[in-house]
Amino acid sequence: MRKINKILIANRGEIALRVMRTAKEMGIRTVAIYSEADRNALHVRFADEAVCVGGPKSSESYLRGDYIIEVCQRLKVDAIHPGYGFLSENAGFAAKVKEAGIIFIGPSPEAIELMGSKLAAKAAVAKYDIPMVPGTEEAITDVEAAKEIATQVGFPILIKASAGGGGKGMRVVEGVEEFEEQMKLAVSEATSAFGDGAVFIEKYIGSPRHIEIQVLGDTHGNIVHLFERECSIQRRHQKVIEEAPSSVLTPDLREAMGRCAVNVAKACDYIGAGTVEFLLDENLNFYFLEMNTRLQVEHPVTEQITGLDLVKEQIKIAEGNPLAFRQEDLKINGHALELRVYAEDPSNNFLPDIGRLETYQRPQGLGVRVDDGFEQGMDIPIYYDPMIAKLVTFGKDRQEAIDKMLRAIDEYQITGIETTLSFGTYVLQHEAFVSGNFDTKFIDRYFTPEALQQEPEEATEEITAVLAAMLVDQKKPAAVTEGANSVPRPTSNWRKNRTR
Amino acid sequence: MRKINKILIANRGEIALRVMRTAKEMGIRTVAIYSEADRNALHVRFADEAVCVGGPKSSESYLRGDYIIEVCQRLKVDAIHPGYGFLSENAGFAAKVKEAGIIFIGPSPEAIELMGSKLAAKAAVAKYDIPMVPGTEEAITDVEAAKEIATQVGFPILIKASAGGGGKGMRVVEGVEEFEEQMKLAVSEATSAFGDGAVFIEKYIGSPRHIEIQVLGDTHGNIVHLFERECSIQRRHQKVIEEAPSSVLTPDLREAMGRCAVNVAKACDYIGAGTVEFLLDENLNFYFLEMNTRLQVEHPVTEQITGLDLVKEQIKIAEGNPLAFRQEDLKINGHALELRVYAEDPSNNFLPDIGRLETYQRPQGLGVRVDDGFEQGMDIPIYYDPMIAKLVTFGKDRQEAIDKMLRAIDEYQITGIETTLSFGTYVLQHEAFVSGNFDTKFIDRYFTPEALQQEPEEATEEITAVLAAMLVDQKKPAAVTEGANSVPRPTSNWRKNRTR
Repeated sequence: MRKINKILIANRGEIALRVMRTAKEMGIRTVAIYSEADRNALHVRFADEAVCVGGPKSSESYLRGDYIIEVCQRLKVDAIHPGYGFLSENAGFAAKVKEAGIIFIGPSPEAIELMGSKLAAKAAVAKYDIPMVPGTEEAITDVEAAKEIATQVGFPILIKASAGGGGKGMRVVEGVEEFEEQMKLAVSEATSAFGDGAVFIEKYIGSPRHIEIQVLGDTHGNIVHLFERECSIQRRHQKVIEEAPSSVLTPDLREAMGRCAVNVAKACDYIGAGTVEFLLDENLNFYFLEMNTRLQVEHPVTEQITGLDLVKEQIKIAEGNPLAFRQEDLKINGHALELRVYAEDPSNNFLPDIGRLETYQRPQGLGVRVDDGFEQGMDIPIYYDPMIAKLVTFGKDRQEAIDKMLRAIDEYQITGIETTLSFGTYVLQHEAFVSGNFDTKFIDRYFTPEALQQEPEEATEEITAVLAAMLVDQKKPAAVTEGANSVPRPTSNWRKNRTR
Repeated sequence: MRKINKILIANRGEIALRVMRTAKEMGIRTVAIYSEADRNALHVRFADEAVCVGGPKSSESYLRGDYIIEVCQRLKVDAIHPGYGFLSENAGFAAKVKEAGIIFIGPSPEAIELMGSKLAAKAAVAKYDIPMVPGTEEAITDVEAAKEIATQVGFPILIKASAGGGGKGMRVVEGVEEFEEQMKLAVSEATSAFGDGAVFIEKYIGSPRHIEIQVLGDTHGNIVHLFERECSIQRRHQKVIEEAPSSVLTPDLREAMGRCAVNVAKACDYIGAGTVEFLLDENLNFYFLEMNTRLQVEHPVTEQITGLDLVKEQIKIAEGNPLAFRQEDLKINGHALELRVYAEDPSNNFLPDIGRLETYQRPQGLGVRVDDGFEQGMDIPIYYDPMIAKLVTFGKDRQEAIDKMLRAIDEYQITGIETTLSFGTYVLQHEAFVSGNFDTKFIDRYFTPEALQQEPEEATEEITAVLAAMLVDQKKPAAVTEGANSVPRPTSNWRKNRTR
C-alpha cells in the first residue's frame, strides 16, 4: 500500500483532462506535460502544475519516456498515468518507470510485453481453453500442406502474411478450387512487401461484430469483468460509435465471454484496467482477438452502466488497494452510447479536417456527458489524433440512449471544421443500427456521402404557417410583439449544427 | 390517450431548456415564450418556435395566462408545460387551459386549488392519518383557551398569524409562564400587519430537517413515490443545496414517509409529478407540511438516483399513458447532490448580485450535470429569480458525490458577478454536512461571511519548489523549455473560481 499524492499524466487532450478530474476528486495533485503545440491546451490549464516536454511532434515530446521520468523525479511525482496511445503500451517505458521507483498506473511490463505479441498472447492463454479463430499456429510455406489445413478449417479462409500488417499480403479464399492461386499471390505479395513469403491461414469471419470485455485486476489476485462494449461501428478499422451493453448478447453469452476475458487477464497476472477484444460471428460464436493493456477510449460507456469510475479504480489498484467489490456485486444499469467526435469530413471519406473551432458549444442535460480537450476558438493541432470529443449519452434503455444522442448531436454546435457528428445522426437513425442488426461492415453496406445531403424537412410548410400566424398577430396590442424569433426553426436535423 | 406533438413551455431559463431537451428526445416540437428582457435568452434560441409575450416584468409576460393560451391556439399547441413558479400552481390558469382544449402538464385545477390552501389540504388528508405538527386546527383569539391548548401541545410552541406570512406575527414561546405576553404581542403584531389578530398555535420544531418525497400519479389511479430529497440547507427559508437520498432516513422511515406521501397524493387524486414536503424532528418524527403541485427545482437529484426522466414521465402521464413501473420496481441507485448557483453574494447576506457573466465555463465529466439558461457574455436580468444554474453531481455513494461537487465547483469558472459557488464549497467541506448531522439551521449555526475569506494554502511553499525546479531545468537541452505554465497553481480552493 502506497498512497499516491501526485500524478503526472503522460498524455494530452480529453484523456488528460479525464484523468485529472478524478485525481482532483481524490485529492491528488496533478502534473500535465505538454508539447510546444499544446502550450494553450486545456489540459495544461487544468493541471496543478504543467511542464513543457518538447517540440510539437509526438516523438519530440509525448513519447520522450526518459525525459518524462526525469520530470517526475524532479517534481516528486508518485505515479504516472499513461492514458491511451503514446507510451501506454510501451513495456520498456513501464519497466523504466518502475525502476525509477515511480508507480506506473497500469499492468506489469511483462503483461504489456506478453499481450503486445499476438502469437505469444495466444500461447499464454491456451491453457484456459480460450476460443480463437481456427487456423495455423505457425507460419507455413508449403502449398499442399496449407491447402489441407485450409480444408480442415473450412472455407472461406484468410491467408495473412506472417510479417504483415495493413492488409498487405492478405487474401480471402472462398473455396478450395481457388486456394492454390490465391496462396501463390499472397506469398508473392508478402515477399515483395516484407521480404518474407511466410503466411498464416485463419478462418475468415466475414461480418463479425467487435465486442470487447472490460476487466479490472488488483494486486491481490482478484480479477472481475465489467461486461461488454459493442464497438462494431468503425471506419478504417477504427471505432466511431460504441455502446454498452451490446444488443446481441444473451446473459449466458455475456457470462461466457466475461469468464473468458477474466481468464485471459489471469494468463498474464493482469493488474489494473484492461480490455479483452473478441470477434463475434453471425452464429454468436466468439473468438479472442487481443488484449489492450490500458484504458480504452470508449471506457465511459462502461462507467455509465456500472456506476464505477474506471480511473478511480485504476488509481486505487495502483495504490495496492483490493477491489471493493466481487463479480456478483456488479450489475448492468441502463444503456450508454458513445460517439467519437473527430475533426474529419464524413462526406469526404473521413479525411481529417483540421482547423479552428469557430463555434464550439457543448450539449448538456440529463444523461449527456462530453469528454473533450478543446474550447471555442482553439485550433485542432495537426500533430495528433483528430478526436475533438467523446459524446456519451445514457438512458434507462437503448432507445432512450439513442434519443438522447440524437438530441445531443443536434444541440452540439461546431463550426469551422467538419466533424463526425453528422455521421452519428445518420447511423443512429439507420434501421440496421436501431434494430441492433449490424456488424463491422456497417459503413461498406449502408453509408454513402450522399446520405448526409438530405435537406431539412417541413421548412416550407412551416414558413407558411408562421406567415399566417404573423398576420393574426398584427391585431394584438402593441406591447405584444412578435419578433424575428417567432419564425419556426426547422425540425431537428444534423444540418442545423452547421448553419444556425 | 392523446399524443402530444407540440408543447409550449410557459417559462424561461434553465427549466424551459430542461423541458425542451426531453421534448426533443421524444420527437415533440417546442414553443418558447419570452419577455422583451429575454429576447436573446438561450431558451428562445433552443426552441423550434418562439413567441414574445410582452414586457420584461413577469406580470407583463410570463404571467399573462390568457394571452399564452391564445398563442397556444394560434400555433396549434397540444400541451403547456408550466415549469415551476409563474403560472405553475395557478388553479385558474390550469382550468382555462383545460377549457381551451389544451393539455395542462400537471394535476387537475381542483388538486392545485386544494393543496394551495394549507387548512383545506390538512382537512383533505385527515382520513389517511397523516402526521401533522400538533396544534389548533382553527384560528383562535381567546388567551385562556389558547394557553390551555399550548399546554396540551407542549412547549416550546409557535404562535402564527392566521392571515400571516413572511414570519410576521410569529412568536416562539418557550414555556407557559411567558405565553400570555407573547400571545398578546403576536395578536397585536398580526393586527397591525394584516388587520386581523387571529392566530394559530403549533408545536415549535426548533431544528427540523426539510425532507420531501417525490410522487408520480397517472390518469389510471396509480401513484408511486420516488423516494426522498433532503433540502435542509437553506438561506432565507429557500433551498440552496439538496440531495437524494437523505443520509438520515432508515429504510423503514423512508417507506413510512413514502406511503404517507402517496396517501397525500391520493387525497387529491393527484396526476403528474408532485412533491409532498415534511418536517423531520431530531427524534425522526415527521410532519406533513404541504404539497407542491408541480415539478420542483431540485427534481434532478431524484432523476439521478432513480434513472427516470421526470419530465418524460410528466409528458407520458399527460398523454394518458399508465406508469410503466410499480413501486416495487423502483430502487435507489447511488447518491446525488444539487447546488443552486445563484447570482448572489454569500459574503453579503446572499444579496442578489446581478450583472454580466464575463467568464462562464461549465464543469464537465463523469457524474456532473449542469442545468442552466445562460452562456458567457449574457446578462442576468433583474426581473426574475437570480438562479444561474443547478450544478448536480452523482456518485456511487455520498462521499463520491461530495468529492465530485467540490471538484465541479472548482472547475466552474464564473466572473463578473458573485455566486453561491463559494458557499457550496464551504458547506460541502463542513464537518456537520459531511457527517450528515445538520438541519435547516445550518447557516445560523455555522456560516459567517468570514468563513469564505481563507487564503489558498501551500502557495509559498510551492513557488519555492518550482524556482528550484527551474534552476535544474536550465541544464536541459534548448528544445525542452519550461514556460510560464510550469509555475504550480495553488491547490483546489474556491478562490480559484474568481481569479484564474
